Amino acid sequence: MQKTKDKIILASLKLFNEHGLANVRLQQIADHIGISVGNLAYHFKTKEQIVLTVYEEMFSKYEHILQNYLKNPHLLDFDLQVSQFFEFFNDYRFYIADLFTNEHPFPEVQEKWQVLINKLCIQIRKRLDFHVKKGDLIAAEPKVYDNLSQTLLMQILFWIPQQEIMKKVVTASRYKETLWNNIQPYLTTQGKGEFSKISFPEIYD
Amino acid sequence: MQKTKDKIILASLKLFNEHGLANVRLQQIADHIGISVGNLAYHFKTKEQIVLTVYEEMFSKYEHILQNYLKNPHLLDFDLQVSQFFEFFNDYRFYIADLFTNEHPFPEVQEKWQVLINKLCIQIRKRLDFHVKKGDLIAAEPKVYDNLSQTLLMQILFWIPQQEIMKKVVTASRYKETLWNNIQPYLTTQGKGEFSKISFPEIYD
Repeated sequence: MQKTKDKIILASLKLFNEHGLANVRLQQIADHIGISVGNLAYHFKTKEQIVLTVYEEMFSKYEHILQNYLKNPHLLDFDLQVSQFFEFFNDYRFYIADLFTNEHPFPEVQEKWQVLINKLCIQIRKRLDFHVKKGDLIAAEPKVYDNLSQTLLMQILFWIPQQEIMKKVVTASRYKETLWNNIQPYLTTQGKGEFSKISFPEIYD
Repeated sequence: MQKTKDKIILASLKLFNEHGLANVRLQQIADHIGISVGNLAYHFKTKEQIVLTVYEEMFSKYEHILQNYLKNPHLLDFDLQVSQFFEFFNDYRFYIADLFTNEHPFPEVQEKWQVLINKLCIQIRKRLDFHVKKGDLIAAEPKVYDNLSQTLLMQILFWIPQQEIMKKVVTASRYKETLWNNIQPYLTTQGKGEFSKISFPEIYD
């Protein structure tokens, strides 16, 4: 059975995604799972405690995904990590508003994002180097892959919000397709062979 | 001489960019340009009036940039439009937080953004088709250019905020370089020839 504490965090995340962090009150969270505010306060004394727990879980999941780096030397490895990022950013949709909140109530959260996004950027860059050396990607000036890693990072971070603004459908397959499309021009014959193993639509959804 | 009204709008934009729309008070705006709140109120009775004027100017500038579409049939035409978008998004840095504000005080502003972003998306897609027909870009499946237009749109919209989060330097040249890097793999020999005319760093800054 799900613990009340978990239920509270899950309901809070849902409400944060819908209304934004600043616009959700304890009463709404309690109402959402059908408990009293008193009961809720037994688990979390303040909204701040809930918010910090959500952040903590979020950052820990993100770091976990970062750790899934080159577990195997195939292009599929990146595809799997990208799937995890899709799930992550889809689950934590409030993140985009939060990331750009001016005068953020927890400045350390935005500092943490800065660190984590830079980490991902460096990791993507390394990954591209790895696949160049392995022969999946063509040899090119470092600048070309500097730029490609920036583009991939942007896709990973902002694809879902962009689709949301344009009122377009958000699916894992479209997320990954757009991302791979940026890599495709740089694939070698070997890279194309490996890519063909992961580009089947049935794997995508 | 600059009119007080213009000074108020300029100061407001500066403060909105720094602190976010919701966090700026009339008093701050008045202080910033060294007038009394009474004098300010003579020009704009409420903060809402200032905010709506800023939005109006912003959207009108954006639409003006959209109108600068294929004034000439060269790749340089896109480069010029991209420069204008850089300047625009650099001037209106508050836009990113505003775009993702939950329960926005003016829902029509976010609807307007939806329309304008979709317009730009369609325009970029058309532009790519134009350059394929003209022979600057290689022939490819429509899907390839659907995806490329999404990527270019994302660069135009989110490159500056991404750099800001990562505490990296924001320059027009890097903005344009990243963007053109996405197009480069699709250039034909003719396209490369035309591109070489615009890729000189001295033109960039």
